[in-house]
Amino acid sequence: MCELLGMSANVPTDICFSFTGFLRRGGDTGPHRDGWGIAFYEQGGYREFRDPFPSVDSAIARLICDYPIKSNIVISHIRQANVGQVRLANTHPFTREMWGQPWCYAHNGQLEEWQALPLSFYRPVGSTDSEHAFCWLMGELRKCYPDPPEDRSGLWQRLHELCEELRRLGVFNLMLADGEYLYTFCSTKLAHITRRAPFGEANLADAEMVVNFAEHTTPNDVVSVLATEPLTDNEEWVRMLPGELLVWRDGVIVARFVAGQDESVV
Amino acid sequence: MCELLGMSANVPTDICFSFTGFLRRGGDTGPHRDGWGIAFYEQGGYREFRDPFPSVDSAIARLICDYPIKSNIVISHIRQANVGQVRLANTHPFTREMWGQPWCYAHNGQLEEWQALPLSFYRPVGSTDSEHAFCWLMGELRKCYPDPPEDRSGLWQRLHELCEELRRLGVFNLMLADGEYLYTFCSTKLAHITRRAPFGEANLADAEMVVNFAEHTTPNDVVSVLATEPLTDNEEWVRMLPGELLVWRDGVIVARFVAGQDESVV
Repeated sequence: MCELLGMSANVPTDICFSFTGFLRRGGDTGPHRDGWGIAFYEQGGYREFRDPFPSVDSAIARLICDYPIKSNIVISHIRQANVGQVRLANTHPFTREMWGQPWCYAHNGQLEEWQALPLSFYRPVGSTDSEHAFCWLMGELRKCYPDPPEDRSGLWQRLHELCEELRRLGVFNLMLADGEYLYTFCSTKLAHITRRAPFGEANLADAEMVVNFAEHTTPNDVVSVLATEPLTDNEEWVRMLPGELLVWRDGVIVARFVAGQDESVV
Repeated sequence: MCELLGMSANVPTDICFSFTGFLRRGGDTGPHRDGWGIAFYEQGGYREFRDPFPSVDSAIARLICDYPIKSNIVISHIRQANVGQVRLANTHPFTREMWGQPWCYAHNGQLEEWQALPLSFYRPVGSTDSEHAFCWLMGELRKCYPDPPEDRSGLWQRLHELCEELRRLGVFNLMLADGEYLYTFCSTKLAHITRRAPFGEANLADAEMVVNFAEHTTPNDVVSVLATEPLTDNEEWVRMLPGELLVWRDGVIVARFVAGQDESVV
């Protein structure tokens, strides 16, 4: 299995603190030695850093910890390989362009019979179940919506249905983003926390590091962080339910879909 | 205008030496202060590093100089903006997946009436003439070849025709790669050099740095480097002709198309 980290914020925010704890799970406090990646949305653009080596040993990962890239949406993944060799083409996150938007995807879990998912517009570069499922998911969305819909609620409902289909094939914890929205889907484990004024201190669970967010924020900042397991040990993280899809924008939940219901419940 | 750097090699090779000279043009020996990027193909995978800041000041660029990523194909670009603001979404290289291959593209030059080029499968994320032309080019190739052709010569001929169409709109010096082949098209300026045994010394034109390739290579290595302007001042670079398309694989030219001729001349 792997680990996921995500962020949605209403101001460009660096994720150095959370990432520092998270990457310790890549071969130090966790067994996930088979590569890592992180994607940032900035100023309408997108960039990612990926490395097929353990994050604790990675010069690129150290750079990301020390070089505060400010972003409204971040997705990161550290890998413990199951399907697909340890190599760059199998390293998350994966990206495809749809409607002139860079869509970014990372998956925790393992699927059965994923080879039968039919592909259309998008095809995998590597050999993982994760990337195949991503290409199927994006292809199905694009078949329904050749152009971006004015009203997004139908798109999100379709996304929830597709996530539920994938959950029936195994474990499918998901982070997906299009530059404006962050989508998180829980199959077995995903937790989130929203930080806003008054900001306090947080202690990393995976490293000896404390940050006082009050020193780094303004009173209007809203920053939500998500991870497969809580990253701090002195804050209350909310665990998502199996089959739950959350749609985030500017640090807050703007839509919520739960298992067995077709409509948004926010 | 911008600057382009490319490499094709028959063994995984690091480009630290050439990149060190090249990035000096990003705000030091050259005026190209509006961002830079570099893409590497490794083990069937692909990764890129992009920064909307001058390469001479970039911590990420310094990392790339010091961290030898070994690759068979590299494409790099430093930008002096003309069309499109200085921001991440407008920073080359650009990437799209076709047939399960990551295609990477960087452009030097400026086009007229590029907005009229019709788009199909691929749409630009940013606002440059370069990315629009890339999306058009890839869409036209995909219309002709929905699946990868067994015989590549027709594909290459079609690519040459499309490059010639773009050259008629202005200046279009191109680097394009699909992970197996590197394609270079010259509109006004591109030069190349092929290094093989017996290897000698090279002096960077843009920095005080000398390398003795004999210390870093084996007798079977073949490494070709391309750039808008020669990077060394003690070697014989070959300048490409306007309208010439070269197809590179494993460091050597496998096909050549010239202006006014429809067929490969190698």
